[in-house]
This record gives sequence, structure tokens and C-alpha cells, in this order.
Amino acid sequence: MQEQFLELDPPERILMGPGPSNVHPRVLKAMSLPVIGHLDPCFIGIMHEVMDLLKSVFQTSNDFTLPISGTGSAGMEASLCNAIEPGDEAVICVNGFFSDRMADIAERCGGRPTIVEGEWGHAIDVNKVESALKQTKAKVVAVVHAETSTGAMNPVKEISELAQKQGALLLVDTVTSLGGMPLKVDEWGIDICYSGTQKCLGCPPGMAPITFSERAMEAVRNRKTKVQSLYLDLGLLDTYWGEKSAYHHTAPISMVYAVREALRLVLEEGLEARFKRHQLNHTALVAGLEAMGLNILPGKDERLWTLNAVVIPEGVDDAKVRNRLLEEYSIEIGGGLGVLKGKLWRVGLMGYTSSRSNVLLFLSALETILCSEGLNIERGAASQAVSAVYG
Amino acid sequence: MQEQFLELDPPERILMGPGPSNVHPRVLKAMSLPVIGHLDPCFIGIMHEVMDLLKSVFQTSNDFTLPISGTGSAGMEASLCNAIEPGDEAVICVNGFFSDRMADIAERCGGRPTIVEGEWGHAIDVNKVESALKQTKAKVVAVVHAETSTGAMNPVKEISELAQKQGALLLVDTVTSLGGMPLKVDEWGIDICYSGTQKCLGCPPGMAPITFSERAMEAVRNRKTKVQSLYLDLGLLDTYWGEKSAYHHTAPISMVYAVREALRLVLEEGLEARFKRHQLNHTALVAGLEAMGLNILPGKDERLWTLNAVVIPEGVDDAKVRNRLLEEYSIEIGGGLGVLKGKLWRVGLMGYTSSRSNVLLFLSALETILCSEGLNIERGAASQAVSAVYG
Repeated sequence: MQEQFLELDPPERILMGPGPSNVHPRVLKAMSLPVIGHLDPCFIGIMHEVMDLLKSVFQTSNDFTLPISGTGSAGMEASLCNAIEPGDEAVICVNGFFSDRMADIAERCGGRPTIVEGEWGHAIDVNKVESALKQTKAKVVAVVHAETSTGAMNPVKEISELAQKQGALLLVDTVTSLGGMPLKVDEWGIDICYSGTQKCLGCPPGMAPITFSERAMEAVRNRKTKVQSLYLDLGLLDTYWGEKSAYHHTAPISMVYAVREALRLVLEEGLEARFKRHQLNHTALVAGLEAMGLNILPGKDERLWTLNAVVIPEGVDDAKVRNRLLEEYSIEIGGGLGVLKGKLWRVGLMGYTSSRSNVLLFLSALETILCSEGLNIERGAASQAVSAVYG
Repeated sequence: MQEQFLELDPPERILMGPGPSNVHPRVLKAMSLPVIGHLDPCFIGIMHEVMDLLKSVFQTSNDFTLPISGTGSAGMEASLCNAIEPGDEAVICVNGFFSDRMADIAERCGGRPTIVEGEWGHAIDVNKVESALKQTKAKVVAVVHAETSTGAMNPVKEISELAQKQGALLLVDTVTSLGGMPLKVDEWGIDICYSGTQKCLGCPPGMAPITFSERAMEAVRNRKTKVQSLYLDLGLLDTYWGEKSAYHHTAPISMVYAVREALRLVLEEGLEARFKRHQLNHTALVAGLEAMGLNILPGKDERLWTLNAVVIPEGVDDAKVRNRLLEEYSIEIGGGLGVLKGKLWRVGLMGYTSSRSNVLLFLSALETILCSEGLNIERGAASQAVSAVYG
């Protein structure tokens, strides 16, 4: 047995895929701290600190703001299954893999989703959302702020105005934007918002930050039926994380340590400075890619700073290039998801990964590989374009 | 901000509550290893190793054996919501907080539970289970092997025979037994079994080992309705953890590292040796407690080796004693849960915590505190009783 399962020795990777991104050393260090009881007064203090830190990062004053004990997908499910009960109508903006999944979950909750379809790789058409809202009595409007599968950003502020007009709750997926791109939960009128830890927060995957406005919590309290999931039942989570500290489940202590440290790092850097860093490195990366003759799927005004969707040039072997990046340079990037499989590379610049060094190294490695694969690329053009951005 | 949220510095505790238990240093070290991508070939190899290790610890050859990306409560929910669909009958043995919760979840799944009630702190009456099974067409019989809330063990093997006679699937909660007490999933005819990582496996909380027999998987595949949870949908989890490695969610990488290392430690020690260690330390603890005049709630033959339910002597202030243990000795023990609140201390000896040193220290600390609280305890009697056990 001991021979079969050796000591763990994972490689050092540069994680430029759609997530996880690289984890800050201080966060890894926090994970190795001694585990204490989940009802220890010291841990309860830590929980309350994490809630406060999360409020600052979400830019909200919502009381119900905490990390769910599951990954980002659990955050999506918690948001939908608490907000929607059997028979509830919901307008769901679908222009990517993750918004498509929202519709699936809404149906599993017994909801009646009206789908506003959008082209993958582009922002959703706000006019379509408006007419869908007029044709339904939607309790919830759901949209993904930053679509991890396409690299496109959706116009959350505009959709918020429409939702408010119709009195619907606005539910927003910010898995690939929280901590990397401007997001103001209260100012933008978002009622329900969830994210993941392993993208722009620079923390390992495992928890899902979530926030519900008072209006959204009231809707949860006024449900006619029990939430179908006990594990994700917000009423129970509220009494566990809240003043009562009533047992609901055992929080993942080490992951909570990690989230606390990651949030501390975000606020030490400052939200605005952090967003600027993500924007700058994204701009440089795109300049380099375009100088190499590559294209970005979303249009200029609808691109994420955190995830870059690069159209794979014709004749290039998707998997081979990604494997060479991994094996020769220990750089991970992602392939396409769903209908975009084989058509896209997804290059993440999130959290600790978003750095000038990573931009330079990646472009240089990609240039070398594409040249050796026979693509006609002007050597050095990317590097020159990047320098112009950084100045 | 930096002043408000200082660097994390949790105290070193001796975790003798109902969980989490102390984490082995090698497991903490594994958590601080570099995070890699969840679709990295190296990580997929680690996933398959974890599945193999888990099979050994569950003593099963079930293909579907993996850790769910949530805590033990998520394991309970995944087990029930995949096995039970609306209208399904289920016999649920309820003699504690956690089995009571099973009934709640079964209802949330649209199931029709028949409750077999048992006294808290004692094993369930097998005859009652038999007659309940005769009166229903149960698809599932659910029982908690080791009730964390009462310290009592249920007769899983006997219930298994009854379930098999009626063709029902046997679903067993082993949160507080896996890795600490004998449990043979295949030999005992268990179809569905789940656990947690933070008890006898000596790992931080955050994942839920689970296993489904081929018969149980067939029932899942033959469902008429979708599983209500996408996050916990076993069909999807199967293609993610299985040969296809199809994206479902992002596994909590660092927690998977921790689980792997914890399972490696279990098998290095050897299952039988580990069970013996848990039995010996439990026997010594009970001998010491009884020598001090304290009583254990469950009868001699129905006691867990992993969690000891100690009846709080009359006139003693529950919270005060627990606080003094924590503040003066950094020892955590648990209070009672549900109807046993204020009546019980729950003293865990699980995983890395189950050691001779911890038994001695705890008894000595408790003796000192109880004496100073005015209880008439013969000094040294516990120590003498314990020595007789260890020999």
C-alpha cells in the first residue's frame, strides 16, 4: 500500500485557465494552521470577521453575507433553490455554459424559467430581457455577470433597472468577477449574488461567497414550502453564521481560514487598485495576442478582464498546444466548454495569477509553440505590443 | 482595515468534542501544497487514487466511491436526494439528532418516510424496524451507524438482513464510525454509505466520503425524475470523477489533498490496528470516568468507541465545566444536542485525537475541575482505573 500511494508532490503550475487561479502563499500558509472546533468562541469570531470582510468585497451592507460550504456551483444552487419555489416564474439570461446551468437548476427547483437567449461570447441583449420581463410575472431575473465559458460580460446595471421596474429580485453570478472587476452589490441593486473562492480571490476552490439583500431574505422567509435542500437552507445557515451560532453543519474550518486570508489580501491591496491591475494585465495580454494575429471572441466593450476567450486559429491542434504549454512551461490554460469546445482557449488572469510576469511568459511560450507548429507569427511583435501597454 | 483584521493565530486545541478531531500534521502539510488545476492530468490521477484509498477504508469494491465536495451533511443529503424521489417510501430509524435530520431531508425530497422511533442514547429496536418494513413498500431503509448526538451504535448488520429480505436499499450514516470502528460496506450489505472527513479520518471538515453499490446506482439511473440537486447529482458526479473526467464543478483541490493524506495514514496504520486503538482508548476513558462516579448514557454493548456520551452529574454547571476545560486546558468537549442539551457531555476520541495521552490529560483536568466545583470525587481513582486498562 505505502509503495502504491506515495507522498503527494504536485507540480508548481502557472494557473492561467478558467480557475482555480494561483493561490497566494499567505493563503496556503493559513490552511496549514491548527484546526479548532467550529463552535469554539475563537472560530465564531473568525466567522464574523469573514462575514465583515466579505461585505466589504461585495460592497454591500447585507446582513446575510457569508461563504457557503461548497464550491461556486453550490453557491449557484443555494441562490436559486432558496429564491425559487415550485411554480415561481423566473427570467434567465442564457448566453453561456453557466447561465444554461442556472436554467437547469431553476427547473429542478420546480420553477418556470423563461429563457432569454443570447449569443455565446457576447453580452445579452437588454431589450430581449425587457420584453421577457413584460411577458411574465417573474419573481427572479438571473444573469451571469462574467461568463467563465465565453469571456463575455453582461450588462448587470441595465438589467437591474429593468428588474426593479418589474419588482423582480435580481440574481447575479459573479464567480469570475468578484475581486477582479468592479462589482457593487448595493449600488447596482443586486438582491442575490454568489461567487467562488478560486478565481479572483486567489484562494483554493471549496467555498462560495454569497449575499442576499433584506428584500431577498424576506422572500425566503415568506416561502410557502421548505427549501428543497437542508444543506443549503438559508434560514438555517443564517442562524448558524448569525448571532445564535446554532449548529447546522460543521464549517470547513481550514477553508474558512483560507477565505479570511484571501479577503484580507484583497482589501490590503484595495479594491480599486486590484481592479486596475486586472484591467492592465488583461489589456497587455490582449495587445500581445492581437499582435500575434489572434482574435478575442467577445467585442472590445464586452470583454472580461479576468478571463480571455481566444479564438483558436484554423489548423491549430487545440489539445496539442495546451498540452505543450503544460508540459514544457507548466502553464495551464483552459479549452472551450459546451458548444465552444475545440474553438476557444480560455486564458485566465485572475487574482494572484494576474501579473506582468505571467503575461510576458505566457505570450512568449505561446509564440514559441505556435511558430513550431507552423503558424506564421512575427517574432517579437507581441512583446513590443505588451511593452507599449505597460509603458 | 489591516489593524482590524490581524494575522490569523488560532489556538492549539485538544479536540475532544464531537468533531472536528485533531488533524494529523502530515494532513495539514498536504493542505499547504501548491494548488493545481482540477482537470490537470496530475490531479485526475490524485482523484483516482483517492477513490481507490476510499474503497479500502469503506471495505467496498463499489465503483462509485468518492468524496462529495461538501461536509458530512452534504453527504447525507446526496445519499437521500439521489436515492429517494417524490412518492418513494422510506423507513427511517430515528434515535438521535442526525437520524431525525434524515427524516427531514427525505421529506424535502418528496419521499414518504415511515419513522421507527427509538430512545435517544440507545440502539434502535430491530423488531420495530422489521414490523415497519412489513407495513410499507420501502425503497430505502436508513439508519445512523454511530449517532454523534448520543454516543450510541445501531445494529447495522441486523437491519441489513431485514432490508435485504424486503428488497430495500440500506442507507447508512457512518460519519462517526468510518476509520474508527469496524465497518464493512460490502460484507454487511450496505448499499449507500456516507461519512465526514473531520471525525475518525483525522482530516479537516469539508468533504463527505460516499459510496453507492451497483444496485443503488441502478436505482439512481432508473429514476423517473431528475435529482433535485444538480450539485449533488450522482450521475453527473460519476462522469466527473470517473473515466470521462467531464466538468461538473471544481473539486476543492486542497481538501482532496488532505483527504488523500488522511486516508494514506489510515491504511498505513492498518484498519484493524486503528479500530483496536480506538477501542482501547475508549475503554480506558470509560473506566476512568466510571471510577470518578460518572455514567455513560448508552448501555455497555451499544457504546461507540469514538464518541462517549457522559451524563452530567446533578448540580454541575454544564457550560461552566466546558468553558473551564477550554480556557484552562485548551481541551474542547461537546455539549448535548437537541433533547439532550444540558444533560450530556460528548467526549470524542476520534482519529489522531484518540491517544493515551489525551485520555490521561482529560481525566486529570476533569477531575480537578469537578473537585473545585464541589463534587465529591476520589482523587486518583480515575488514574488507577485507566492504568489497569492500559496495563
